[in-house]
Amino acid sequence: MNIENYIDQIVKNAKTASRSIASANTVTKNAALMYIADDILNAASSLKAENEKDIATAQKTGLSEAVIDRLRLTDSRIKGMAEGVRQIASLPDPIGELLQGYTRPNGLHIQKIRVPIGVIVIIYESRPNVTADAAALCLKAGNAVILRGGKESINSNIAIYKLLTTALEKAGLDASCIQLVEVIEREAIDYLLKADQYVDVVIPRGGEALIRTVVEKSTIPVIKHYKGVCHIYVDEFANLRMAKEICFNAKTQRPGTCNAMETMIIHEKIAPTFLPAVAKEFQDAKVELRGCNKTYNILPTIKKATDDDYHNEYLDLILNIRIVDIMDEAIAHIAKYGSNHSDAIITDNINNALRFTKEVDSAAVYVNASTRFTDGYEFGMGAEIGISTDKLHARGPMGLEELTSYKFVVFGNGQLRK
Amino acid sequence: MNIENYIDQIVKNAKTASRSIASANTVTKNAALMYIADDILNAASSLKAENEKDIATAQKTGLSEAVIDRLRLTDSRIKGMAEGVRQIASLPDPIGELLQGYTRPNGLHIQKIRVPIGVIVIIYESRPNVTADAAALCLKAGNAVILRGGKESINSNIAIYKLLTTALEKAGLDASCIQLVEVIEREAIDYLLKADQYVDVVIPRGGEALIRTVVEKSTIPVIKHYKGVCHIYVDEFANLRMAKEICFNAKTQRPGTCNAMETMIIHEKIAPTFLPAVAKEFQDAKVELRGCNKTYNILPTIKKATDDDYHNEYLDLILNIRIVDIMDEAIAHIAKYGSNHSDAIITDNINNALRFTKEVDSAAVYVNASTRFTDGYEFGMGAEIGISTDKLHARGPMGLEELTSYKFVVFGNGQLRK
Repeated sequence: MNIENYIDQIVKNAKTASRSIASANTVTKNAALMYIADDILNAASSLKAENEKDIATAQKTGLSEAVIDRLRLTDSRIKGMAEGVRQIASLPDPIGELLQGYTRPNGLHIQKIRVPIGVIVIIYESRPNVTADAAALCLKAGNAVILRGGKESINSNIAIYKLLTTALEKAGLDASCIQLVEVIEREAIDYLLKADQYVDVVIPRGGEALIRTVVEKSTIPVIKHYKGVCHIYVDEFANLRMAKEICFNAKTQRPGTCNAMETMIIHEKIAPTFLPAVAKEFQDAKVELRGCNKTYNILPTIKKATDDDYHNEYLDLILNIRIVDIMDEAIAHIAKYGSNHSDAIITDNINNALRFTKEVDSAAVYVNASTRFTDGYEFGMGAEIGISTDKLHARGPMGLEELTSYKFVVFGNGQLRK
Repeated sequence: MNIENYIDQIVKNAKTASRSIASANTVTKNAALMYIADDILNAASSLKAENEKDIATAQKTGLSEAVIDRLRLTDSRIKGMAEGVRQIASLPDPIGELLQGYTRPNGLHIQKIRVPIGVIVIIYESRPNVTADAAALCLKAGNAVILRGGKESINSNIAIYKLLTTALEKAGLDASCIQLVEVIEREAIDYLLKADQYVDVVIPRGGEALIRTVVEKSTIPVIKHYKGVCHIYVDEFANLRMAKEICFNAKTQRPGTCNAMETMIIHEKIAPTFLPAVAKEFQDAKVELRGCNKTYNILPTIKKATDDDYHNEYLDLILNIRIVDIMDEAIAHIAKYGSNHSDAIITDNINNALRFTKEVDSAAVYVNASTRFTDGYEFGMGAEIGISTDKLHARGPMGLEELTSYKFVVFGNGQLRK
């Protein structure tokens, strides 16, 4: 097969399908989603059989246990996948929403109406459940989607993808509304990223290197989901009991997530009292601590943090600690090392709280709460395609509304421009 | 001067300045804008003197009269430039607007707040007035801006730019909030387009070739202002008198604008009555007509339209005419040849009107009005940076709000993720 022609056919099919799905009504889209959910549950054993092939290859090629775990489809994950799709069906349909409507002095009536984006490419790592999640979200928002999953999950993805297209056909929708790139060659991505005549946006999920490559190669707009290097600044006016609980939660509740804390910044006035107690709790929970020189003076047994450490998204039980003289230093540290994802201040002082929320330039800025809440469900949006670290179009959790655009519809009765 | 270092310094200055301008209050920003307006008026004669140098070079290098006209700063254009900046000062400040605010079941209070984008690069053609307009819009929306104008207008731009930075300083703002790239080498753009660590968005204005180059080279998100290939479809149920007036207005009122009509599509049922009358009116106004075969049968003296003609943004007194059997053909023509800018239907039939507004995928879709209204002022937004033909972030006229992003500010009292 010629990969260039293959991708060319996929993007053209997607463009055509995007026109019909854009005007599909909610009942039809929800029917397709419910078929998807049912079919996933019914096909559990065959999905697991296909998944076994991927697992076997992964074990043969010596992939890490963490990767293999993400790859694995268990009964509970299959149930979760179906449940996720059902929840997306239950969310309100964003399409057709009137965002603004007003009449101009000359009588022109202008409506700003929410419409689908069109054709979306999603590039993701080897988590087969994303195949169903991402497809369902794009479908509900009236978009055609082209999925490109990690090659390690190719058999699982193809098995899920077959269910998706069957469900679309049962609901009377164009099967090309959801397409999977079934060739695993990297070349396929290169062709996809140049198809700017047909594709409206690319959303890459995965490691920094992948996202950087996509940004460099793509002539299509990219919404980036970069890493989360999240900070909590414990202010001199913090409630120290609350600070300890929040920092512990933000680091340990699920360290492998992008909204987990990677660096704790402490005001030097409270460091001598706060640090030893919180450090003990972290160490009891097997969290490795790495500190600045001032931290090291209080905790002489820990490692020193390097510049690279402060830039690092550990996604693991490792924590940097830095002590600062004043809040400005904390804000400057976050500006330098952070990834504009989620950052928090713990304080009882309203001036510091408000200054922090204004000056820290992150998608989510918290006062007296754990950074772990940056998430579509926790923000009340429902399922999300990811957390955007970009400032254009979508910032923070990207749910259904962030998968839409708008158009102006203008009604007149003969108006001419003078 | 080493251009790479020069650009590196500019983007770093912009990033630093973006932090201070983001939290500048409205009074300060408006004061700077009013200084700019006053200073432009006061400096009229020196601006004209600098502009004369550009005009002289342009004449020597044999640039077209149209280009030289765009380049020229007259007293009335200088007055218009000052007036434009004053109007931007009078617009409401978009920054700090609470877009959403709600409390989650766990007590977390979430605010979605409008914030500046950060650092904006504007690349534009040789129209010196854009230097003041674009700078004023970005400033009011709390952004730092880097301007790169056409090299033909470099002396005019530098003269205007000096006024801008003086005004910023008088208002107590960082002069680096507005920077002009003063070197005319193309290389400077290449370095700018790779500065994704410092710049948040690039907005290119100008020809298709320039925009295409920017898209291909940039690792920074680009908001495109492509051409406007605008259509009016005169339906079989059109009020023909209204149709004639609107089509005439959309083609001739200002043919050099992106929202002028380039192709008129006519339902064949009304073509024999409508076409001769409207054609005469166009020909009397020196509009050259180019038609499809069916048009040619009715108007045998006109040129035939080629496929290239249908793709073309003439910006001139030339009009394509196409006759269609059914509305579907009109919609398909617009999908194939249009640029998703502005398209209109003239009809008294509500079903056709609604179907057209749903299925035509353009930034602005009109019923019974001229396409010439796609414009920030006409839509009630005030001044605009341009008309986006993209579907992400901003679509259609880009005013102050479209030069902003948002952040989530979350207030808690000790919430932990479970």
